[in-house]
Amino acid sequence: MQLENSTSYTMSSNEIEEKTLELRKIKGEELHGMDIEELQKLEKVLEVGLSRVLETKGERFLDEITVLQRKGAQLMAENQ
Amino acid sequence: MQLENSTSYTMSSNEIEEKTLELRKIKGEELHGMDIEELQKLEKVLEVGLSRVLETKGERFLDEITVLQRKGAQLMAENQ
Repeated sequence: MQLENSTSYTMSSNEIEEKTLELRKIKGEELHGMDIEELQKLEKVLEVGLSRVLETKGERFLDEITVLQRKGAQLMAENQ
Repeated sequence: MQLENSTSYTMSSNEIEEKTLELRKIKGEELHGMDIEELQKLEKVLEVGLSRVLETKGERFLDEITVLQRKGAQLMAENQ
């Protein structure tokens, strides 16, 4: 039996609860009781997250295009 | 000393790790290694969350307006 001390268990338990609630809020699943100010903070977090995801997706697309262009150039060189 | 059995501790530990990573991804802090498909799923989650937050914020504003209108009507009635 692998036991950690009770302190770290208690902390973990609280941490899960906290993170679960934060996730539910971010996903918009647990918004009741939140006032306008809290909602605006959450909106900001979501906007920042979304803009980073979109930026990263753009980078991935560019990477793919670069790979395809390189392959195309290689094929053209081989066919000459 | 308050001890839970080791199974629930182990599960908790994994859960924290999982939720922490999910939160970091949603916040756009941990996107390296994610491919376009994963990023698009994340984008969808963020969009749904954001639209729910905006909707709820709209409701809160409407609530406040209703309260103010009611107060206004009451004041007008009292002044007559």
